[in-house]
Amino acid sequence: MKIASLDDGSPDGALVVVSDDLRMQRPCTDRTLRDALDMKRLVPELTEQPFDEGSCGAVLPRATQFLDGSAYVNHVDLVRRARGADMPPSFWTDPLMYQGCSTFIGPQDDITGDPDWGIDFEAEIAVITGDVPQGASADEAAGFIEYVLLINDISLRALIPDELSKGFGFVQSKPPSATSPLAVTPAALPGWDGRKLHGILHVDLNGQPFGRANAGVDMTFDFGTLIAHAAKTRPLPAGTIIGSGTISNRDADEGPGQPVARGGRGYSCIAEQRMVETILTGQAHTPFLRPGDTVKIWMQDDAGRSIFGTINQKVAPWP
Amino acid sequence: MKIASLDDGSPDGALVVVSDDLRMQRPCTDRTLRDALDMKRLVPELTEQPFDEGSCGAVLPRATQFLDGSAYVNHVDLVRRARGADMPPSFWTDPLMYQGCSTFIGPQDDITGDPDWGIDFEAEIAVITGDVPQGASADEAAGFIEYVLLINDISLRALIPDELSKGFGFVQSKPPSATSPLAVTPAALPGWDGRKLHGILHVDLNGQPFGRANAGVDMTFDFGTLIAHAAKTRPLPAGTIIGSGTISNRDADEGPGQPVARGGRGYSCIAEQRMVETILTGQAHTPFLRPGDTVKIWMQDDAGRSIFGTINQKVAPWP
Repeated sequence: MKIASLDDGSPDGALVVVSDDLRMQRPCTDRTLRDALDMKRLVPELTEQPFDEGSCGAVLPRATQFLDGSAYVNHVDLVRRARGADMPPSFWTDPLMYQGCSTFIGPQDDITGDPDWGIDFEAEIAVITGDVPQGASADEAAGFIEYVLLINDISLRALIPDELSKGFGFVQSKPPSATSPLAVTPAALPGWDGRKLHGILHVDLNGQPFGRANAGVDMTFDFGTLIAHAAKTRPLPAGTIIGSGTISNRDADEGPGQPVARGGRGYSCIAEQRMVETILTGQAHTPFLRPGDTVKIWMQDDAGRSIFGTINQKVAPWP
Repeated sequence: MKIASLDDGSPDGALVVVSDDLRMQRPCTDRTLRDALDMKRLVPELTEQPFDEGSCGAVLPRATQFLDGSAYVNHVDLVRRARGADMPPSFWTDPLMYQGCSTFIGPQDDITGDPDWGIDFEAEIAVITGDVPQGASADEAAGFIEYVLLINDISLRALIPDELSKGFGFVQSKPPSATSPLAVTPAALPGWDGRKLHGILHVDLNGQPFGRANAGVDMTFDFGTLIAHAAKTRPLPAGTIIGSGTISNRDADEGPGQPVARGGRGYSCIAEQRMVETILTGQAHTPFLRPGDTVKIWMQDDAGRSIFGTINQKVAPWP
């Protein structure tokens, strides 16, 4: 089953069930996804209307909690190298995770920020959990995944070094992320193996292919492991969102990966492409986002049909 | 006006307006504080019932966001010294803040954790904001404070060093905080100066006075400044909670402060008392919390009446 929250001006939006072909929608007895998660039910009504993914807000505009992992350790390695920081070997065995902003913006909402902040996107897979008890194992935790979705974890690269040097993680450097128009139950998701999503995450920057990484490859920590990490010292109430971190694939030769234009799988954030440029040419030349730039993020099934709809954002004029 | 959310088994509780003397309560037209914040109104009904603060859950069990500052830089200095970390001078001018867990537990809920995790309390003042626009100044931000409350920011000291060394801030080491039974509007709050709360924050550990610090003293960053820091790169939707960090007073001689038993103002967390013990005797001797230990946190007005009710928590048996 696919669901979306229409942006009707209310804080949580209006929950609808969407047909697999994204053509029709049905409202639900519980008006919002939050209510449906609380009631532990999802009851679509019979009336059908045409679905327009342009009318969607964030699937869950106010998540109960948001914890974002860095499951693709290749990305962590590259981004840390890009800012001159070493990566401890424990990063390959102990999940890296931060507490993110628990509110989300819609898939077509503008990205708003000062271009001097170094605005970047990060294309990720995320899951919405049911009630996860404290201390759940990774195997148990995987059973609490209710929905899978895409997110764009907007990151302000120029603010990160100073903020992380203070030792308390991201605050200003990680404003609210955007979600895909749709979230999909694991049972209805092609490529879902119970812990990971296999398939190409498409990222276009200003209409050009930028990333075509496979989300099922190089994911060092699967979602069961990420959820269990988050739940070690707390329960996770229904409506918690757990992110994968930026999707990132190594090259076949174990190198950092080639741009799409050179036949590679490209990148799911600009920072990674800049790092590879530095390795290849001694200098980064792809700029971070500027007003007017656009980023699109989506996945499609084997028949080319959109699975989650498209995150399609523009950077707003500043100020 | 004082409000509370009764723990009726629902995720957000049942909003009531409580009389200033904490004797009577009235339900509200909007069933939950979240609904009332969304509707930008608070309409108590006429029917009155006796109020029992023991029936309260967290004031806002699911905050929209939670950002916790470290406004009492004396505390940061001592805790960092306690774990052998230096404090950069910029900490006196640039607010330290982390994204905390956006769900809260009730004022009488047990603290649940492995005693080997080094369980500690942190007594803090916090505010619930209305809708704060991105980029609000500190002066503007102070105008968006809707309610003031107390929180116990439970901290797992033994997990903090490894977690912070990973660079992404607190996750496992900061499980959900507890709130006071009541939240109070600024207009009804004795000692509120528009940006800070002046008054003694009482902390008892196992029935003995542990902390009597003045929340209006040594607060390097006031709430206007903390909210503006959080809102630099994002709007803060109504229902955002901003914490002060652990209340901490220096001694009159600018030293780290004496225990209450020696006539000092004591501490609002165990870590600070342990640090001072180390300074005075070369060794910390106050243990972190063990199953069965109790912590009480409250404030009272000049007439000795409780302002926010009492956070009164016990550490649960483990496992």
